Amino acid sequence: MRTYLECMPCFIKQSLEAARMATDDEEVQTKVLKEVMGHLQDISLTSSPPELSRDVHEIIRRITKTKDPYKKVKDQSNEMAQKEYPRLKKLVGESDDSLLMAIKLSIVGNVIDFGAMNRFNVDDMIDNAVKREFDASAYPQFKSVLEQSETILFLADNTGEIFFDKLLLKELVKRQKQITYVVKTNPIINDATVEDANLAGIDKLATIIDGDSGQKQSAPGMVLSYASKEFLEIFKSSDMVISKGQGNYEGLSDVTRDVFFMLVVKCPLVAQDISSEVGKLILKVK
Amino acid sequence: MRTYLECMPCFIKQSLEAARMATDDEEVQTKVLKEVMGHLQDISLTSSPPELSRDVHEIIRRITKTKDPYKKVKDQSNEMAQKEYPRLKKLVGESDDSLLMAIKLSIVGNVIDFGAMNRFNVDDMIDNAVKREFDASAYPQFKSVLEQSETILFLADNTGEIFFDKLLLKELVKRQKQITYVVKTNPIINDATVEDANLAGIDKLATIIDGDSGQKQSAPGMVLSYASKEFLEIFKSSDMVISKGQGNYEGLSDVTRDVFFMLVVKCPLVAQDISSEVGKLILKVK
Repeated sequence: MRTYLECMPCFIKQSLEAARMATDDEEVQTKVLKEVMGHLQDISLTSSPPELSRDVHEIIRRITKTKDPYKKVKDQSNEMAQKEYPRLKKLVGESDDSLLMAIKLSIVGNVIDFGAMNRFNVDDMIDNAVKREFDASAYPQFKSVLEQSETILFLADNTGEIFFDKLLLKELVKRQKQITYVVKTNPIINDATVEDANLAGIDKLATIIDGDSGQKQSAPGMVLSYASKEFLEIFKSSDMVISKGQGNYEGLSDVTRDVFFMLVVKCPLVAQDISSEVGKLILKVK
Repeated sequence: MRTYLECMPCFIKQSLEAARMATDDEEVQTKVLKEVMGHLQDISLTSSPPELSRDVHEIIRRITKTKDPYKKVKDQSNEMAQKEYPRLKKLVGESDDSLLMAIKLSIVGNVIDFGAMNRFNVDDMIDNAVKREFDASAYPQFKSVLEQSETILFLADNTGEIFFDKLLLKELVKRQKQITYVVKTNPIINDATVEDANLAGIDKLATIIDGDSGQKQSAPGMVLSYASKEFLEIFKSSDMVISKGQGNYEGLSDVTRDVFFMLVVKCPLVAQDISSEVGKLILKVK
């Protein structure tokens, strides 16, 4: 997916949020915003949003001298989601169609800004999200491709969310699938890294790799030109690819191979690109 | 009121909206955004938002080669509000306290983005807004100052809204007040100019002046350093000053003389500054 002009104010808004997580010094925050605006003057809109976002967040980290501005938010997200895990497991266990429920919960995990919410609100949000209507028209195709697949490449998105993915990974393991779970090699926004995936115990269910291994900065979504050779080989050879979140969608929406995208639409431009609406839970093959 | 870092993404978002009103050419729109971002790298946050907004919109007009990107929106707003006028007049006429109802409607006029709505929606919005609770704690002081005043300076805000102001101006004229109604000398966003005020028939109720007469560009709110000598004299000598909208509030919130501000809070930073919440109808002396 290309970048749109609407992404410019959004990049700047996110830069301010990130700068404020890193420092209370308004002079430094101002410097971040000014340098980001300077950078955005030189970009091409043909790049995908995660490509540009990678550079924007490199500026934020450099100016604020902070390796991982989202560290606290990410830890809170993991902690909160870990507490929810037994409830999620019960929901899957009690469901008539455990695979479908695990898919839905994995998508629901993409909606919640865990770091910013208390336990009570997260409980409510999960209950509401589970009740929410969900276009499952791609589910028969998902099941059919899954049945014929031995190897599955699973691209992760955020911390916290990875605990929701775990339920789906368990369903896949139950069906004797070999899974490669892809995270980022460096901290970028609230995306999961190897450390997070290990914390969630995903190493017991899948082979965890950092898809952009060797890169000095990670993008908040898979960009094939930044991908490791290892990733590109698995991406090509895997029987099935599952991709979580907007960032991975933005990076992979135009690739030639079939990908099952699972995400919550958070941005009107993604909504337009994927022919849906902001707030919708999406399972779509493209 | 000073400018906050949150204003940066907001300026850029508004620049995109304005550029799109002026042209469909994405290259020109991109050029606008890049030039605006370049300009925002050099600004000082001690300037008020209307001061910075003046420069931002000068860039938009220059790059798009459009004298008044909001012309269509403004004409639609005036047309829509003119159609509502008989209904508004009836609401004031039937009210137990016609002055209070005229004040409330004048504030309500600040809430509606007339250009973007159809007649049916505007009818509904007015009905809802009139029913909405409204902190009238400053009303006794408003009445008391009004009783002791002969001359009133009234700073207008938007097109469309000026028809709502007309009801309040009539209430003031009924009480034998001499009113100076202040508009902008040049087109800026959707703000009213002399032409608009004349169209609304305000010339029959008040002396219309452009408060920034002589300036090549107008700011979307009164900035005293851009004001004409005539305005500054009337601002000083008037018995009472009424100021409409956020832009005028941002420009005048720190002046030493008493001003009755009437506005709808549309921005969280203004909300914080005025100790209120987004969406509230405000009558406040400061």
